Amino acid sequence: MPQLEGIFPPIPTPFDADGEIDVVALAENLAWWNRFDLSGVVVLGSNGEAVLLDEDEKLALIEAVRAGVAEDRSMIVGTGAQSTRATIGLTQAAAGAGADAALVLPPSYYKSQMTANVLERHFRAVADASPIPVVLYNMPACTGIDLTAELIIALAGHANIIGLKDSGGDVAKLGRIQGALDGRFRILAGSASFLLPALSVGAVGGILALANIAPRQCVEIFRLAAEGDVSTARDLQVRMILPNTAVTRRWGVPGLKAAMEMLGLRGGPVRLPLLPLGPKERNELRSILLEARILDPNEKETTR
Amino acid sequence: MPQLEGIFPPIPTPFDADGEIDVVALAENLAWWNRFDLSGVVVLGSNGEAVLLDEDEKLALIEAVRAGVAEDRSMIVGTGAQSTRATIGLTQAAAGAGADAALVLPPSYYKSQMTANVLERHFRAVADASPIPVVLYNMPACTGIDLTAELIIALAGHANIIGLKDSGGDVAKLGRIQGALDGRFRILAGSASFLLPALSVGAVGGILALANIAPRQCVEIFRLAAEGDVSTARDLQVRMILPNTAVTRRWGVPGLKAAMEMLGLRGGPVRLPLLPLGPKERNELRSILLEARILDPNEKETTR
Amino acid sequence: MPQLEGIFPPIPTPFDADGEIDVVALAENLAWWNRFDLSGVVVLGSNGEAVLLDEDEKLALIEAVRAGVAEDRSMIVGTGAQSTRATIGLTQAAAGAGADAALVLPPSYYKSQMTANVLERHFRAVADASPIPVVLYNMPACTGIDLTAELIIALAGHANIIGLKDSGGDVAKLGRIQGALDGRFRILAGSASFLLPALSVGAVGGILALANIAPRQCVEIFRLAAEGDVSTARDLQVRMILPNTAVTRRWGVPGLKAAMEMLGLRGGPVRLPLLPLGPKERNELRSILLEARILDPNEKETTR
Amino acid sequence: MPQLEGIFPPIPTPFDADGEIDVVALAENLAWWNRFDLSGVVVLGSNGEAVLLDEDEKLALIEAVRAGVAEDRSMIVGTGAQSTRATIGLTQAAAGAGADAALVLPPSYYKSQMTANVLERHFRAVADASPIPVVLYNMPACTGIDLTAELIIALAGHANIIGLKDSGGDVAKLGRIQGALDGRFRILAGSASFLLPALSVGAVGGILALANIAPRQCVEIFRLAAEGDVSTARDLQVRMILPNTAVTRRWGVPGLKAAMEMLGLRGGPVRLPLLPLGPKERNELRSILLEARILDPNEKETTR
Repeated sequence: MPQLEGIFPPIPTPFDADGEIDVVALAENLAWWNRFDLSGVVVLGSNGEAVLLDEDEKLALIEAVRAGVAEDRSMIVGTGAQSTRATIGLTQAAAGAGADAALVLPPSYYKSQMTANVLERHFRAVADASPIPVVLYNMPACTGIDLTAELIIALAGHANIIGLKDSGGDVAKLGRIQGALDGRFRILAGSASFLLPALSVGAVGGILALANIAPRQCVEIFRLAAEGDVSTARDLQVRMILPNTAVTRRWGVPGLKAAMEMLGLRGGPVRLPLLPLGPKERNELRSILLEARILDPNEKETTR
Repeated sequence: MPQLEGIFPPIPTPFDADGEIDVVALAENLAWWNRFDLSGVVVLGSNGEAVLLDEDEKLALIEAVRAGVAEDRSMIVGTGAQSTRATIGLTQAAAGAGADAALVLPPSYYKSQMTANVLERHFRAVADASPIPVVLYNMPACTGIDLTAELIIALAGHANIIGLKDSGGDVAKLGRIQGALDGRFRILAGSASFLLPALSVGAVGGILALANIAPRQCVEIFRLAAEGDVSTARDLQVRMILPNTAVTRRWGVPGLKAAMEMLGLRGGPVRLPLLPLGPKERNELRSILLEARILDPNEKETTR
Repeated sequence: MPQLEGIFPPIPTPFDADGEIDVVALAENLAWWNRFDLSGVVVLGSNGEAVLLDEDEKLALIEAVRAGVAEDRSMIVGTGAQSTRATIGLTQAAAGAGADAALVLPPSYYKSQMTANVLERHFRAVADASPIPVVLYNMPACTGIDLTAELIIALAGHANIIGLKDSGGDVAKLGRIQGALDGRFRILAGSASFLLPALSVGAVGGILALANIAPRQCVEIFRLAAEGDVSTARDLQVRMILPNTAVTRRWGVPGLKAAMEMLGLRGGPVRLPLLPLGPKERNELRSILLEARILDPNEKETTR
Repeated sequence: MPQLEGIFPPIPTPFDADGEIDVVALAENLAWWNRFDLSGVVVLGSNGEAVLLDEDEKLALIEAVRAGVAEDRSMIVGTGAQSTRATIGLTQAAAGAGADAALVLPPSYYKSQMTANVLERHFRAVADASPIPVVLYNMPACTGIDLTAELIIALAGHANIIGLKDSGGDVAKLGRIQGALDGRFRILAGSASFLLPALSVGAVGGILALANIAPRQCVEIFRLAAEGDVSTARDLQVRMILPNTAVTRRWGVPGLKAAMEMLGLRGGPVRLPLLPLGPKERNELRSILLEARILDPNEKETTR
């Protein structure tokens, strides 16, 4: 069973000047993340521009990440697709390439047909066919589908479905799920903006875009919460909200990659239709990172 | 300055068999709430069926509550209306009748015109004219208007605007507001389903429908959180989510009044268009209250 | 039975410099509307700032309109309120003051409790108690409640519910309702932006904010549609969309009142929290009215 | 330039018992549609389960359709993908395989980043690179992205963007677009539920799921509207709304394929996660088709 506790960055996919995957840049980033007390990485998530990659790129990327991530850490791979068979196909391929778990978005195109029954059968079929454990991925802002507490609780009964990444931010729902299940089913916060609140109702970690650029701080919130140091945890949590919003809802992957560059990491270009941040947005982003003390004004490359 | 910390029940309005306000029943309920470590009560909130009362009833109700609530406790009165002048009128009348603070919903009918500028001017005009401090009330599920963090932070600069009740449940937003302001501005959770998460990012209490029927448990979550007893607090919080949902989003005021009756409190009928719970819903509600240990199977009237 | 066919302006409420209802201005406006081939007027609708008026003002306004509108024309009065009993009270008062029909918005504050059953009982109770026929008013942009086709069809079975004003703009829904009912139940478009499309699926007229400032054009679309002059109707319909949007969704009542002033009608101030248009918005509005040929550049006061 | 006027069915993709594309069944369906006065077909649309097919299947399908559709008719191919480069790749491949035009959905996964600027650059890049004309495809129910009138009007300035399929149903928006553009830009209704209303504001045809099972009736509405026979058109339009809802929003592709089977066409199974209709739904669907006179009770196979 993979380690599914603690903090995981859902890593961006670096592209070179020709727009192709840059495995050297990727290896450099991974080496940096390996220096922090992270539990592993998520590849092919939303922040990895997974929906903008073709199938060959996805497999090449999984292999490159496996080679670069510390051996004792988990590699979770996003494998959701619109059809059940494509999801199963990618999940099996990811397992073959060394994935420890699959993070599976629901199909979402035919929204009016995505009833609880349809979704439950889909996830069960994927979990049945998957050689590795499945983590449900609730991401209503991207998919337009909000997995209900009832559906998640039902799916938690499947032996190969071991947890949930929730990016919806309804922490009452997370508490409801936690209250209905024993500790086998692991809940992970999907955004650093509500990490501490999620931990307060039973989450055991987070898959956090912000952990790409502020791994130390994200791990620290997790540690302080476990120790019951409520007030220090709160101050750090509250300080992380604006930078987190900047690299997620507000400026998305372009914002995250720009922030990585500011920190000395290898962000690189985004793939179209995404557009890079303009100079005005970059300046505002820099101010936010400085204010939150993620970027240190005295060091050129804080992260090195 | 009123005490704006800790737990407040937003009390229902009891009606008699003729559908008129029942001040005797109200006094009985207040006497019961006075026995718990609550910080005061909220009258004329959503749970008080305020929008179903006429102006004379509202004033009579405020006076009856003032007479029944313990003297050292705050009485907060809901005074929001669609026009600025009606809001000011009711706020001044409430102050004259002994209100310690006004809880003010935004105007919401002309949604497309309710820009940040319009809302800011409205709340400032109300706060300017109010003899008592103003608490902002964000309740998107009822109003269709979601006050933004930026607007709330701007309004917190007004000397007579002292806090926020938020029922939206976006705890990241609460953390964002808390991070931008000093402790003078008080954030209160608007639902027991996310009380502990809200406290984890800086809220100092809650105005909670559930506190009408589970005052002891709500106060206990608040106390455990202050003491840093993370795991006991979490267990109690998680246990309160289903009963809270039952008396809020799911069955609303009819559910809350039915639960009060089960506990031996004076719930009484709801006013049309609201309809009372049917027998099937009552049975399900009873099971939820028993399961959450709010209702004790061995006592007929737990609350007496 | 009132005439419920053709074009009705939902008239604004003119206020004087002190913010009180200006009955002289109202009479002047009514005299102007009387010169066009309109079927009547709607008073106390959304455009009448009904939610910003108190009860005494509402009754005074109904009486003033009754005195000023041509005798052979219908006066329809908006009487919806949050409680069933307040709705019945205002409906009976309006009937007493000469209303020909009541236009009834659904209660909307307790959105999660407004099930089909609750809404059906409410409207039936109002229709039972009303001395005048009831017209359902579907206005999801303001109420957050969208009456379903099924509910409307069920309510059309009540002898005292004679029609629907729909501002939602889902013309397929209007066709669905029309297909299920005979011609006794009258469907009125709630916005000039989709008047012709609504007529194409069976609507028999409209209650149109734009009819306040472009009564001739609105009546003309109605006439051309009845005559089957598809292409002339289409050109005029298409030309009316931008000015209609300007005085509805975009700038609301402040836009409508500003447009009335430009045409020489008595618009006057809006009531807070609504704010008047600024100079930039007024210039843009003027251009839109000129472009649509509602405002004539060669006449100072087109409407006189 | 392709013919972009009149009625087009967005054809389903038939699968055999093994779940693979059934080209024989496809050819039979095409032969039937060729007998009606349709303007062409759309392949790889939402009804074609395009998002459930892999790249090889898509190309095989385009070729099979090209072989089966009448030579003088247009074949429009859905080519939208999440990345700009995948969209261009599929558009060029489709052109190579004989497509007359590309129907392009907007990218939609990164919703918060899909600003007007990002979408405009994406569509311009696709139109620049496409050997065939581009038709914009607005489908908010599936994508969660609603292309604004302003964006569509701006894109209509590109010489290789020739029209719009709109499934959103906001006919006022269609009128607004029509009013701003000359007749070069073609608007097609995206649903039979609002075909006649859309034609009334300037649409020149429709891409209609219902045209797969009721081609004669859809063409008839189009013809009657052109002739100004308002009342016959209205009756037929109104009658088509319930069956159209059944094979679109309500039961989606599973409903459409079931209806095809009832008519003697080759519907066949859907691909997972979609599930076939159960017996109860099939019975209700049959009643709806009979009531609308799409299915004839006296003929076993109406369509042969």
